Amino acid sequence: MGGDYAPQNVVAGALDALESTGGRFSLLLVGQQERIQQELQKHTGARAFKEACTIIDAREIIEFNDGATAALKTKKDSSIAVAITLHRDGKADAVVSAGHTGAMLSASTLILGRIGGIGRPTIGALIPTSAHTPSLLVDAGTNVDCKPRHLFEFAVMGTTYVEAMFGKKNPSIGLLSIGEEDNKGNEVTLEAFALLKQSKLNFFGNVEGRDILKGKVDVVVCDGFVGNILLKFGESVPAFFKSKFTDFAGRSVVNKLVALIARSGMRSVMKELDYQEHGGVPLLGVNGVSIIGHGGSTPKAIKNMIFRAEEMVQRKVNARIQEAMKQYAKSQQERL
Amino acid sequence: MGGDYAPQNVVAGALDALESTGGRFSLLLVGQQERIQQELQKHTGARAFKEACTIIDAREIIEFNDGATAALKTKKDSSIAVAITLHRDGKADAVVSAGHTGAMLSASTLILGRIGGIGRPTIGALIPTSAHTPSLLVDAGTNVDCKPRHLFEFAVMGTTYVEAMFGKKNPSIGLLSIGEEDNKGNEVTLEAFALLKQSKLNFFGNVEGRDILKGKVDVVVCDGFVGNILLKFGESVPAFFKSKFTDFAGRSVVNKLVALIARSGMRSVMKELDYQEHGGVPLLGVNGVSIIGHGGSTPKAIKNMIFRAEEMVQRKVNARIQEAMKQYAKSQQERL
Repeated sequence: MGGDYAPQNVVAGALDALESTGGRFSLLLVGQQERIQQELQKHTGARAFKEACTIIDAREIIEFNDGATAALKTKKDSSIAVAITLHRDGKADAVVSAGHTGAMLSASTLILGRIGGIGRPTIGALIPTSAHTPSLLVDAGTNVDCKPRHLFEFAVMGTTYVEAMFGKKNPSIGLLSIGEEDNKGNEVTLEAFALLKQSKLNFFGNVEGRDILKGKVDVVVCDGFVGNILLKFGESVPAFFKSKFTDFAGRSVVNKLVALIARSGMRSVMKELDYQEHGGVPLLGVNGVSIIGHGGSTPKAIKNMIFRAEEMVQRKVNARIQEAMKQYAKSQQERL
Repeated sequence: MGGDYAPQNVVAGALDALESTGGRFSLLLVGQQERIQQELQKHTGARAFKEACTIIDAREIIEFNDGATAALKTKKDSSIAVAITLHRDGKADAVVSAGHTGAMLSASTLILGRIGGIGRPTIGALIPTSAHTPSLLVDAGTNVDCKPRHLFEFAVMGTTYVEAMFGKKNPSIGLLSIGEEDNKGNEVTLEAFALLKQSKLNFFGNVEGRDILKGKVDVVVCDGFVGNILLKFGESVPAFFKSKFTDFAGRSVVNKLVALIARSGMRSVMKELDYQEHGGVPLLGVNGVSIIGHGGSTPKAIKNMIFRAEEMVQRKVNARIQEAMKQYAKSQQERL
């Protein structure tokens, strides 16, 4: 029931996912039964795949403007809480939602619990780069006021995710800072630098704002305050260029023609910046697979989120994170 | 002597500035006498304006990789230190340099002193927006690990600068954060929010990363860690688009043609993002006018920096900052 277009886009995306994989998995659709039923009935073409959908009734909806913690306390029968509980109880292998991000985060952390050694679960975001493989920015906005060890955990979770999901061996990690030199940073990053340096991770060192889109490293580590601001800034760049291009087109007839012809190129380039292509972001560090999508997710985004969830289960990302944190704890003990 | 192309670009920019204003001001060129002399001799066309240039000999050069504090101690006869001392002693009305940013900052703060009430001088940067007037991002990278009151000072200095330089009455101020709501932020911004809210400034509230390029507010306040990362990220966007456009052009002959035609449009749009057009950034909060330019400054950038310095002197930006801080101190006392 989450997101701006629920349940219609969620149901459409679910059926798309089933149809394009020939029913490789089955889906539990959690929410107000009659509304989901109604949506399913609209899709006359995908009859066979409706049987792969089971509706689980959940009466309440956590609204966009609800406070996450309060909503989880008062709305026990929300689609988010019910879905995550199904996952905890082994009745689902993963949860996908385009609903309230804070509620997904809190409910996943509370109901599923954290992976051993992880202080703060995190969300990573894939950033397009000119190096042709995207980089993972972690934390993408979940945790502000981080301690150095939280940044270290983000690096462990990010590197494990990239390795498991993209088959990248020993991904490189950059610590986002204000200069390349080891002594550049703020109090928190300088301490995090030391932790990363003495670890067995493939730590490149500090990276700067200008290195992100170059794809200088596979994993870019920062706190959620910086990550949130950077990602939202990046999301606003296409609209900015579009407005500047419109200004340019308005200046002469020749410009108008140039802009018209350029549009197809611009579109193709901008497409790479579109989150819909990637479909949601994973919550890392909880005992489960929890994928959080944009509130405005299209059916395509929902479909891609389901595929991502399936992949995360198959590639055992959480077991790998747990192992990495164990290894780290062991090396810390050996040092003492 | 500062920057990647010194003294040639500095001398060329200085002569351009004199020529295009008909010698409205005179310039002191500070650095190794014989090298500046040599550069001046190359410009045969601008003879008349050479007389408006006085060379002040300074033997030492603070190099790009020198530590700012150490260099200022050991290189007492650097062009930066000598130029700023001339300014302090009233022999120059302003200082302009494309040299070592840290050294300019430290030397200006130490030699000129801070404006009363200002704890941390700052650098602001003009950001292009789709609203057609640029916004000022302050702090642009000078101060990391800021206290709430430093962010407040940045707001005062930024708003005064925008008002004085662009004639914008009562500019609006946004506090860069992770959500629009009053309670979104990290520990430092939440406290800064309270300070701004109870002040007489035109405080809009929190703004997000996506609001910057929209030009939602005239002054965007953040700490230098976030500011530095954001600005460097922004600077890297044109190269990213260029590389994606090259990929696009490589995919077919039609695409190649589209890209070729689009190029003029792209160039015109990218031009707005070019720092050379603005020419340097002002150091705010010191008792003097100190303009810091990019190390790679072209003659055009140097020329624009000189114009900006002249404007800052004429519009009495520092007197206004001093007055604003006095007003603030007074209102604080009244509150007690």
